[in-house]
Amino acid sequence: MGVNYCNPLGLSVRLKYVNSVPLQVATVESKGKAMAEAQANIGVVGLAAMGSNLARNLAHHGNTVAVYNRHYDRTETLMNEHGDEGKFVPAHTVEEFVASLSKPRTAIIMVKAGAPTDAVIEELANAMEPGDIIVDGGNAYFPDTIRREKEIRARGLHFVGCGVSGGEEGALNGPSMMPGGTEESWKTLGPILESIAALAEGEPCVTHIGTDGAGHFVKMVHNGIEYADMQLIAESYDLMRRGLGMSAGEIGNVFAKWNEGELNSYLIEITSEVLRQQDAKTGKPLVDVIVDHAGMKGTGTWTVQTALSLAVPVTGISEAVFARGLSSQAEQREEAAKQELAGPEQRIELAQSEREAFIEDIRQALYASKIVAYAQGFDEINAGAKEYGWNIDQAAVARIWRGGCIIRAKFLNRVSDAFESGEANISLLFARYFKDAIASAQSAWRRVVARAAENGIPVPAFSSSLSYYDGLRSDRLPAALIQGQRDLFGAHTYQRVDEPGVFHTLWAAEGRPEIKQD
Amino acid sequence: MGVNYCNPLGLSVRLKYVNSVPLQVATVESKGKAMAEAQANIGVVGLAAMGSNLARNLAHHGNTVAVYNRHYDRTETLMNEHGDEGKFVPAHTVEEFVASLSKPRTAIIMVKAGAPTDAVIEELANAMEPGDIIVDGGNAYFPDTIRREKEIRARGLHFVGCGVSGGEEGALNGPSMMPGGTEESWKTLGPILESIAALAEGEPCVTHIGTDGAGHFVKMVHNGIEYADMQLIAESYDLMRRGLGMSAGEIGNVFAKWNEGELNSYLIEITSEVLRQQDAKTGKPLVDVIVDHAGMKGTGTWTVQTALSLAVPVTGISEAVFARGLSSQAEQREEAAKQELAGPEQRIELAQSEREAFIEDIRQALYASKIVAYAQGFDEINAGAKEYGWNIDQAAVARIWRGGCIIRAKFLNRVSDAFESGEANISLLFARYFKDAIASAQSAWRRVVARAAENGIPVPAFSSSLSYYDGLRSDRLPAALIQGQRDLFGAHTYQRVDEPGVFHTLWAAEGRPEIKQD
Repeated sequence: MGVNYCNPLGLSVRLKYVNSVPLQVATVESKGKAMAEAQANIGVVGLAAMGSNLARNLAHHGNTVAVYNRHYDRTETLMNEHGDEGKFVPAHTVEEFVASLSKPRTAIIMVKAGAPTDAVIEELANAMEPGDIIVDGGNAYFPDTIRREKEIRARGLHFVGCGVSGGEEGALNGPSMMPGGTEESWKTLGPILESIAALAEGEPCVTHIGTDGAGHFVKMVHNGIEYADMQLIAESYDLMRRGLGMSAGEIGNVFAKWNEGELNSYLIEITSEVLRQQDAKTGKPLVDVIVDHAGMKGTGTWTVQTALSLAVPVTGISEAVFARGLSSQAEQREEAAKQELAGPEQRIELAQSEREAFIEDIRQALYASKIVAYAQGFDEINAGAKEYGWNIDQAAVARIWRGGCIIRAKFLNRVSDAFESGEANISLLFARYFKDAIASAQSAWRRVVARAAENGIPVPAFSSSLSYYDGLRSDRLPAALIQGQRDLFGAHTYQRVDEPGVFHTLWAAEGRPEIKQD
Repeated sequence: MGVNYCNPLGLSVRLKYVNSVPLQVATVESKGKAMAEAQANIGVVGLAAMGSNLARNLAHHGNTVAVYNRHYDRTETLMNEHGDEGKFVPAHTVEEFVASLSKPRTAIIMVKAGAPTDAVIEELANAMEPGDIIVDGGNAYFPDTIRREKEIRARGLHFVGCGVSGGEEGALNGPSMMPGGTEESWKTLGPILESIAALAEGEPCVTHIGTDGAGHFVKMVHNGIEYADMQLIAESYDLMRRGLGMSAGEIGNVFAKWNEGELNSYLIEITSEVLRQQDAKTGKPLVDVIVDHAGMKGTGTWTVQTALSLAVPVTGISEAVFARGLSSQAEQREEAAKQELAGPEQRIELAQSEREAFIEDIRQALYASKIVAYAQGFDEINAGAKEYGWNIDQAAVARIWRGGCIIRAKFLNRVSDAFESGEANISLLFARYFKDAIASAQSAWRRVVARAAENGIPVPAFSSSLSYYDGLRSDRLPAALIQGQRDLFGAHTYQRVDEPGVFHTLWAAEGRPEIKQD
């Protein structure tokens, strides 16, 4: 099994290039020689799967790419296996690496987030000169990016936190990229990133998001939306699988069909692929032999934590993150299975004639909930931009998500249009296209949530999105009661609908007079 | 209007003590004299509403209470208005305050969280000696408490972060208190706090929660549960108000009746009080003239953010926090009202004969959702205890919440029993009493969620709690599909149900072989 686990997705692509005798088109004979020449226009530090693929992608598009890894064996492997794919300049040391870059020196770091990233930044900054550009292409937490940008800027260099989406395959064949940093750094970096980005309708999927941490912030929200998207698909699947008793393959066919319509997207496409996959060992659908504990790596959690700090409701993303959390609570779930908690059989009994209509209801519920999840995600970007002083073009964000990244989807054209026209300024839900889409889907959405509740199938993201929608369209919310309670037990005061000012009722006093506060 | 806004709830109580000629029973004639005497067994720093009331409560129960405030006028006011209620030792300076305390000196800080608290801690620590005890009775964020405890311990003093619940009224007449810190500090502090705590069935509502930040952590979760409780009540109210078209007063009567049964609690009691309150100006129900934007102060947000870090689903609390957030998004809600988003009329049409049954359904939905919210909250305490190395007695936590605090409720006796018997070790939902309660409520709960979805009334906490319950009792969750998707696009690997190990499918390769990872 000579397959490289770290880069399985690159396999089919790699075959295009592999020679029986790998040929290095650019080598460094001696440290002295390398130090003397500044021949690379871009460098990559960190040559694990993502870094190697990004370096190859850069080389494929005419860039001369300096490459450096802490342990040289990775550099050697890259050169041996892919050195003939373009112009590489391998380096043994950071100093050699920096010396091989033409000015302004531009280096993309692709190492683990956290301390390893800080260490590489420090090494590069020490070896570089004012005006040079350090790019962090990892999944950094945006407050770290804000801090780093400040520190590096103080030293006269540029620091660009750049979200890179699309996984290893995207890194190799065209990712969607979300760079922050200064306008000046973008002048140098922009053309390089545009050369390797995914194309969507001919446009490169990269844009300058905003200063300092804006890029990593938007990438974080992208991942949060991805969590919601995947949870909504999982709920749709569950309703068909347990609810209607369909086979994985049948449901795979449904998703394939859905992929031809307004839901057309990478995630719907791969859902049908996953569901149609047979397990070689048992002959069963692969999905049935996979342990149902969903993993996560932190960006979804950050998205919700940040939204909470910004007081932006992102209920769809939040329910998606919590659903993964619940799925992985092995001890609780095992005990629950023994306890046989009361509830319906988790089956939806329908006449044959009603099944097709219910499947169409599910599709519409998925679409409506998806629109809410995107509206909430863009709300968070908007609130983050206000909080951190970023000037983010939301239409451009939607456009660069159309290709290369995990949530790429046809419907992002509509999202982009909605922001461009100004119709989505306050919420995506107010743009005519989406408003109409929900108007025509909302009855189906309600039927699905009601049926799921009655029959015991969990639909946390469907129902939470529906409640958000119904909350938003409510003239009066019961929050008035909450304000009354808070004033009674904590003297937190309230406002009146008919008069400006802040009021408190003396609840405990005779006749309960009201006092206006200044 | 000579009413003190800062202490409106104390008004009726204060009347008991006010003399026409206030008499100070303990005064300090000169700084020199104070420095010489160590007569107080407890001190309070910060004499705003909470601090003054706590000092008075301490004095009412036989303690000699040193009192200090940065500006002496507050100290003077306290002495003038309440100096005759017990033994006070007012101080002009921190040094004088510390000198007036007998050893081990014990001082409770009641100032604003954050920088003001840090400043007072530093002043006290400088004036105190090893073995003395500094107590922070504010609403500190527990990681701050962990940090402070470590710093103060390194200086040989004790630091106790102590959650104090019950608002100003509780501080005066008996709060529920959640102290952290060392066992040794509890020996001194315990009897003092027990003397002033609320009593529930004869037991003082205070216990030593655990070391360092444990007390503030548990207080934080208490507040998170309070958010969920209030949101569930708000949804119940909304279903009757908009759904069934009942008047605020009629619904107040329903809550009063509910308060006689298993829902008996402070929050249900005050809900009926709020709903029965008439507005003096308009004659309308007060709740109808209150602006429906619910405020919040951060502890609910912290509870959810912390749960996310601990990977504990607290969906009920999360939906409650987000519902307050949505209610306060004025711009979005105003635009939504103009846009007339599609949906049902938010009215539930029922025959007269069915209305009583539906109201009973709402009661059961509220009870079942409430049990889920408490189960999730205790899960968070359990996970926090594991993460931070605290030995928390959950039965004791439930017991001290029975009195003094906002979520005080009869049903906490059952919660305490469930933890005491060990039945709730894995989840409160597995304790027989609660399992049976949900079993008998779950059909009603489902009807309510279904009816709300169909008729357009938002029930985010009801439906989210129901989905959590249905997720927990699922043998298989669609998380298996999510794991398949993650393996396809990100090579994140998965586990198999029939074999140990970590697996990855070569999705892009011919025949899609599977590889076992080591």
